Amino acid sequence: MEFSPKDIKWIAVDWGTTNLRAWVMGTENEPLHSLDAPHGMATLGRDEFEPALIALIGPYLSANVVIPVICCGMVGSRQGWAEASYLTSPCAPPIGTLTTRASVKNPRIAVFILPGIKQIKPADVMRGEETQVAGYLQQYPDFDGVICLPGTHTKWVHISAGEIVSFQTFMTGELFSLLSYKSILRHSIAADGWDSAAYLEGVEDAMSRPQSVAAQLFGIRAASLIADLSCANARSRLSGLLIGIELAAARPYWLGRNVALIGADAIAGLYADALNQQGVNTSMADTQKMTLLGLAAAKNSLKDLAN
Amino acid sequence: MEFSPKDIKWIAVDWGTTNLRAWVMGTENEPLHSLDAPHGMATLGRDEFEPALIALIGPYLSANVVIPVICCGMVGSRQGWAEASYLTSPCAPPIGTLTTRASVKNPRIAVFILPGIKQIKPADVMRGEETQVAGYLQQYPDFDGVICLPGTHTKWVHISAGEIVSFQTFMTGELFSLLSYKSILRHSIAADGWDSAAYLEGVEDAMSRPQSVAAQLFGIRAASLIADLSCANARSRLSGLLIGIELAAARPYWLGRNVALIGADAIAGLYADALNQQGVNTSMADTQKMTLLGLAAAKNSLKDLAN
Repeated sequence: MEFSPKDIKWIAVDWGTTNLRAWVMGTENEPLHSLDAPHGMATLGRDEFEPALIALIGPYLSANVVIPVICCGMVGSRQGWAEASYLTSPCAPPIGTLTTRASVKNPRIAVFILPGIKQIKPADVMRGEETQVAGYLQQYPDFDGVICLPGTHTKWVHISAGEIVSFQTFMTGELFSLLSYKSILRHSIAADGWDSAAYLEGVEDAMSRPQSVAAQLFGIRAASLIADLSCANARSRLSGLLIGIELAAARPYWLGRNVALIGADAIAGLYADALNQQGVNTSMADTQKMTLLGLAAAKNSLKDLAN
Repeated sequence: MEFSPKDIKWIAVDWGTTNLRAWVMGTENEPLHSLDAPHGMATLGRDEFEPALIALIGPYLSANVVIPVICCGMVGSRQGWAEASYLTSPCAPPIGTLTTRASVKNPRIAVFILPGIKQIKPADVMRGEETQVAGYLQQYPDFDGVICLPGTHTKWVHISAGEIVSFQTFMTGELFSLLSYKSILRHSIAADGWDSAAYLEGVEDAMSRPQSVAAQLFGIRAASLIADLSCANARSRLSGLLIGIELAAARPYWLGRNVALIGADAIAGLYADALNQQGVNTSMADTQKMTLLGLAAAKNSLKDLAN
């Protein structure tokens, strides 16, 4: 490693359903080192979380020093390491004093897990995204508008006066994955390749007639069988239809508002293209940076508790 | 067997993507015996079709007799036993003279495969359902209206003057299966149990606001996590949302028309409930009976070619 063990002040962890990511942190918000492992929450029994974490961060721990480990994500769910009960929106994103302490055997770590947020009506939940939102509000404390976090389960979050006012989740990424890898459409969908016009046409079709999505899914298969629809075109069109019906449903979120996108460049770019076509201004923020800012804010607010 | 080999006049076969079904037939349209095997088209290479068929029907063949075997379904696709090129709608359902002869090694069978039907715009295809439609038109030659065939890929077929005028396919059954067994919703969806009110409410929600389906899918998961939504209720609601958005898109088919449903009782009953709620009259026909009537009509029209 290119840094000294004594530079390590804390460890940031984003522990999701399928992946475990950790960042070795010094005094600044830039990580000294990034780590990841495929040991997501869903793969672990309750007593396997500590060993999985130590396997990843063990080389960065020192004798006689207790390092705070600040975690967000599904690690705090009922099936996780220790349940961190949801906050209820409207509320500000969680800070460190609201964390749940996980009991550990290793004396060199103190593990804190951030709660997720639930919304009673319409029923919705998030775990992990609230920390990215917290990070965004660290960077832009006066932000008033909508944050969209595209991914497997895309979240739309309405922010006002530093609070999460309401939010809504869409299974768009998971639907795309199921349809393109597990359904009859898998024979017609390319693993890569892109046709921007086909994507935007799909968005437009779905936004103007959302019900047509139900009909047009098999239409992709049929067009590839009898009308030589290319696999790249099919992939773009499917993506457009699914993001289009999401945008039709999320209209109350984005209409007349500025939208900040937090997500991987490729998928966030697709949302930006579709929203810009609707005359909506978008800005992009980096997922990892927002996560680290959010975890750092939590860490800073609980520093008296770190031992 | 409770019948004599000399009673066997022909064999009817419905050979789909995942299953092979065969019926040993005498002179009447009631089968002497029903057979099935999990050897669907997708599981077989081209030279494996004849052995799979013989493994199933071999015990019913006699020396020195050539038995006609009339097949419909994916067995006639490009990846099937022998490609039976699509007819193009508008057209009448196929008759025996339009069959493709599969080459066989066994001298005791003569195998005929019915073509599917394609529609150029909007692009769509069917293989197998056209034979059920043919059977329905055997029973009701003057039928003018819409036939709906619910299943993995539900078909809506507009019939006029004995012809398939247009049709449209929906992936509703496959979507339900993917979402309830392969997605995050699998944790919230019962394998059985039913709540009729939740189903009809889902239909109504999706028909009145089709785009809301995108939002309400994850809502099922969230409601089961934080609002004690029962697994049976979740299953019914998911089914209602998916059938509801299909009905919204298929409105030009069913609006102001009588609808004949051909499908398994449970799923056809769901469509009937939803359509009746919209003031649409429905009737039900038995899938196997329609398939056999359609295959029998094809057999009768090619009897001169049976050797």
